[in-house]
Amino acid sequence: TNTIYTGLPTTIFETMSRLAAQHGAINLGQGFPDVDGPLDIRHNASDELLNGYNQYPPMLGLPALRTAVADANKRFYDLDIDANSQVLVTSGATEALSDCLTALIEPGDEIILIEPLYDCYLPLAQRAGAVVKSVRVVPPNWTLDRDALEQAFSDNTKAVLLNNPHNPAGKVFSREELGWIADLLIKYDAYAICDEVYEHITFDGRSHIPLMTLDGMAERCLRIGSAGKTFSLTGWKVGYVTGPASLLDPVAKAHQFTTFTTPPNLQSAVAFGLSKGDNYYNALAADLQAKRDRLAKGLAAVGLDVIPCEGTYFLTTDITAVCLRIDSALDDVAFCQMMTEQAKVTAVPVSAFYVKDNQSEVPKNFIRFCFSKKDAVLDDAVKRLLKWV
Amino acid sequence: TNTIYTGLPTTIFETMSRLAAQHGAINLGQGFPDVDGPLDIRHNASDELLNGYNQYPPMLGLPALRTAVADANKRFYDLDIDANSQVLVTSGATEALSDCLTALIEPGDEIILIEPLYDCYLPLAQRAGAVVKSVRVVPPNWTLDRDALEQAFSDNTKAVLLNNPHNPAGKVFSREELGWIADLLIKYDAYAICDEVYEHITFDGRSHIPLMTLDGMAERCLRIGSAGKTFSLTGWKVGYVTGPASLLDPVAKAHQFTTFTTPPNLQSAVAFGLSKGDNYYNALAADLQAKRDRLAKGLAAVGLDVIPCEGTYFLTTDITAVCLRIDSALDDVAFCQMMTEQAKVTAVPVSAFYVKDNQSEVPKNFIRFCFSKKDAVLDDAVKRLLKWV
Ligand SMILES: CSCCC(=O)C(=O)O
Ligand SMILES: CSCCC(=O)C(=O)O
Repeated sequence: TNTIYTGLPTTIFETMSRLAAQHGAINLGQGFPDVDGPLDIRHNASDELLNGYNQYPPMLGLPALRTAVADANKRFYDLDIDANSQVLVTSGATEALSDCLTALIEPGDEIILIEPLYDCYLPLAQRAGAVVKSVRVVPPNWTLDRDALEQAFSDNTKAVLLNNPHNPAGKVFSREELGWIADLLIKYDAYAICDEVYEHITFDGRSHIPLMTLDGMAERCLRIGSAGKTFSLTGWKVGYVTGPASLLDPVAKAHQFTTFTTPPNLQSAVAFGLSKGDNYYNALAADLQAKRDRLAKGLAAVGLDVIPCEGTYFLTTDITAVCLRIDSALDDVAFCQMMTEQAKVTAVPVSAFYVKDNQSEVPKNFIRFCFSKKDAVLDDAVKRLLKWV
Repeated sequence: TNTIYTGLPTTIFETMSRLAAQHGAINLGQGFPDVDGPLDIRHNASDELLNGYNQYPPMLGLPALRTAVADANKRFYDLDIDANSQVLVTSGATEALSDCLTALIEPGDEIILIEPLYDCYLPLAQRAGAVVKSVRVVPPNWTLDRDALEQAFSDNTKAVLLNNPHNPAGKVFSREELGWIADLLIKYDAYAICDEVYEHITFDGRSHIPLMTLDGMAERCLRIGSAGKTFSLTGWKVGYVTGPASLLDPVAKAHQFTTFTTPPNLQSAVAFGLSKGDNYYNALAADLQAKRDRLAKGLAAVGLDVIPCEGTYFLTTDITAVCLRIDSALDDVAFCQMMTEQAKVTAVPVSAFYVKDNQSEVPKNFIRFCFSKKDAVLDDAVKRLLKWV
């Protein structure tokens, strides 16, 4: 069997969720909300199931959803996207990433990944035959170094895979940083795959800037969004890719031979969801910002040093101080294991977000908490942690 | 961009569906029923959407569905499948094929495909880096030649991809033919990926025999099923793979980085569907058998020579006689185009099911009709064709 997959571990998210279930722990590991998204969206899907159409929708996606995605791009970012040639619907953002990498990369091409990185990036890049160059953003402020970035580029660079807002760092890239990336993409004639699934989850008045909105970038970016994250329906697995027609075409071909299409009732409901007024999006961010603050305060009381979180629904904390108190020899993996077993609270070790075969200088003192949970659940988790330490 | 995908045509199914829509033709091209599957299954999905769980289900699939798949394997084929380690749920059979090929093939491995072939097989095999060997079953009886089959094997053979019941041939492989394949898999220490999405659609008392049920095959087969085909809900994109734990593990890893998981409401409803009594399955096959006979009779009256159809919901016909009557120079592609434009009936050219870069001796005189349509639609199509010729 294929060595990329044989012996590959189960994702850290699934692994920690299983461990949480096994120990009856509060699961702040895997990133998903514990309250389902809007009932009107779910009603729309339900109506379609019962009275609508349950056969193959068009391979590129339902026209209604493709139009809604194009409209949302205009409304939120003033991007002009042609619904007919520049939007593809996928079975979740993971499939979108798979399709983009498959379509863009020729074996031997170089791809630049930013560490820490979401766990599917590396195997998907490897499956496509890419040579991986990685650049690290450095905690506690997850700073991107302009020179380190440029050093990762070469004449063989085909693409950068950029997660913005960034999971697990909670970083929202600044216009200045995006400008560096844009300049280098132009200089090296390369593309960007922009995983922007947390585009609507940014805090403190900060707004998300799609790389695609910068000068010269419309022709170089494939931008990925997610209904699961935007509407708190992570199980639905509805994603969308926008990009220039010439790039999107091979991506659609990869899609046609990966899932071919996505359930029409869910597509229809997401089309409906995307037309929700600004209130919905503002409330989503405001609600999560309050949860971030609630959990951050609690974790600080526990003695976990909380790193600033500008977006996403993840908080990262430094475990060093707590380790000193309970058992100084623990790295992040052991800490998460022990915390699950003893405190009955689960988080995810941040070292899992680094390329396995280059562990030198990987920080082992950070763990990530998901805060898209009911207030009572967050409070209960903090209470358990306080009791534990 | 990647040359496997750049310049790749849109699938023949999507292409013909678009052409049908454009000309207001009756679409007997793309394979899907025009009546949605059981309302109780759709109600189950709807209840889950409104009152159940809409976040990530477990990566391997909902336990209820994995158990239902294992149970169905026992009930229909007396196969012993461990729900915990030998079943994976995927976002449709296409994703299942993608996962199996990705997981099984190391670049340079040989894979044997049987022509005519379903259109995703070739690009998926190529993407995995496989060297493709093809064996043809020969019309009008789609006979498999034992020697030709053996000649396709070598010490580098990793796998055979077997579609049984076979689309577009409508062939159900006999126990003898399956025995040849099994012997060769053992002799050459190879695996089979068994695309059995039409397992419940066989006719005239013929029963489907999974290759996996033959001696020594349980350890060598990955068997793919489809809720879309079995429950006439092609838009749902719920598939399942069964196989030995050691093979299924890398397949699950490919899945974890392709779609990660499949909507839980649809999974739950399919679990419910799989427990339907024998009546459902018998009625499905009986209903489609009557439709096969209805369309076959009509097409024969038109002068199209109908090839025997033992399973699937596709009928293949020889166009030679009709061509002589209307315009002898037409190949199957031109015929389907003209039939769509002039008769307003769409079918799919069978030559589209052959490897593009080896067109020598590809038959150009067969077209495929999908008969999973309302009787009135089939009758109307025949009426239009009669008027046309
Ligand atoms: C697909 S499971 C992972 C969910 C997630 O986005 C995360 O926890 O980072
Ligand atoms: C995924 S569209 C193709 C449907 C089908 O199975 C066929 O027409 O053969």
